[in-house]
Amino acid sequence: MKKKIIAISREFGSGGRSIGKMVAQRLGFRFFDKELVKEVAARTGISEAVVEEQGEYTGTRNWLSYLMSFSGGPKVRNGMRLNDFVWVMQSKIIRDLAEQEPCVIVGRGADFILRDRKDCLRVLIHASLEFREERVVRQYGEREVSAEERILDKDRRRRLFYKKYTGRDWGMAENYHITLDSGELGLETCAGIIAGLAGEG
Amino acid sequence: MKKKIIAISREFGSGGRSIGKMVAQRLGFRFFDKELVKEVAARTGISEAVVEEQGEYTGTRNWLSYLMSFSGGPKVRNGMRLNDFVWVMQSKIIRDLAEQEPCVIVGRGADFILRDRKDCLRVLIHASLEFREERVVRQYGEREVSAEERILDKDRRRRLFYKKYTGRDWGMAENYHITLDSGELGLETCAGIIAGLAGEG
Repeated sequence: MKKKIIAISREFGSGGRSIGKMVAQRLGFRFFDKELVKEVAARTGISEAVVEEQGEYTGTRNWLSYLMSFSGGPKVRNGMRLNDFVWVMQSKIIRDLAEQEPCVIVGRGADFILRDRKDCLRVLIHASLEFREERVVRQYGEREVSAEERILDKDRRRRLFYKKYTGRDWGMAENYHITLDSGELGLETCAGIIAGLAGEG
Repeated sequence: MKKKIIAISREFGSGGRSIGKMVAQRLGFRFFDKELVKEVAARTGISEAVVEEQGEYTGTRNWLSYLMSFSGGPKVRNGMRLNDFVWVMQSKIIRDLAEQEPCVIVGRGADFILRDRKDCLRVLIHASLEFREERVVRQYGEREVSAEERILDKDRRRRLFYKKYTGRDWGMAENYHITLDSGELGLETCAGIIAGLAGEG
């Protein structure tokens, strides 16, 4: 079946976003990344910065605060905690977008949210820590915290987020139709393979 | 860097062996699957059936016997248990083969054994349980035990084997340059992508 939606999950610094953009350009698909954050922010009245953070990371930085996130904290909207409210709205908006037109969606749990759509190709982009460190510094510049620490922190929080909202372990091949090591294979090659798969029957 | 060795790990019933054969044919590489078992058997004097079993599965069927496998059981060769001896010899033979000529190696922990070779492409082929059930019955016929049970048993034992000898969790995308869902993408497509990657710079 032809794939008209490409859901790309990626490790921070792996170049998954750039790959997604290339795929969208090649196929003439719409590209959702920051645009999705804007959409969720517009529809909920929550600031983009908060949606950006809450829609992929739990505030939790370790298992204790992770466990507490199921019970603690104030309920902000519709009797839900902020995290949960953003997830519910984001899920709804992603499902709406998938109905509308062919698109590439980067991150935001789209692989899980669209898991039942036969026309959705699920992709994971990952890379070695060394490759990602070099890329993060080049893309986002040096910060006070080292690239390695920033990456490991994002990895940890994304893993917890994914576990909390999907019940799945992050990084398992079985959750994707294809996973690619962008550091080893190169961004262009990854984009070519994904675009090729989407075009096939 | 051009890849002259393709190490293909696969879930039982996913068609990884067929894909490996296709890749070897397309690239004109040697294909090692049963041939590797024969080689290990010839060099150790252990029967092919035992090598076949011990070289990818621990005898352990659960975590208790898994833990016991580190301490219990008779030492049969060079002060080693049979499992460990087969692993050591198999590792040595796989490293030797990789030195000799371009080849495709299916299973036997080759992805881990050759992890430091820059010219080795590491691949995992997986598929849904439904796809594998259908394929196992078609390939190997009906047995007293259902296809589902046979698959789940092999999955479990392969996971334990992989953990024991590599220290890694089976099925993690990060251990491979590429993972492919053969049920979703089709065997021919998977073979084409792998052969394409091996030929690239």
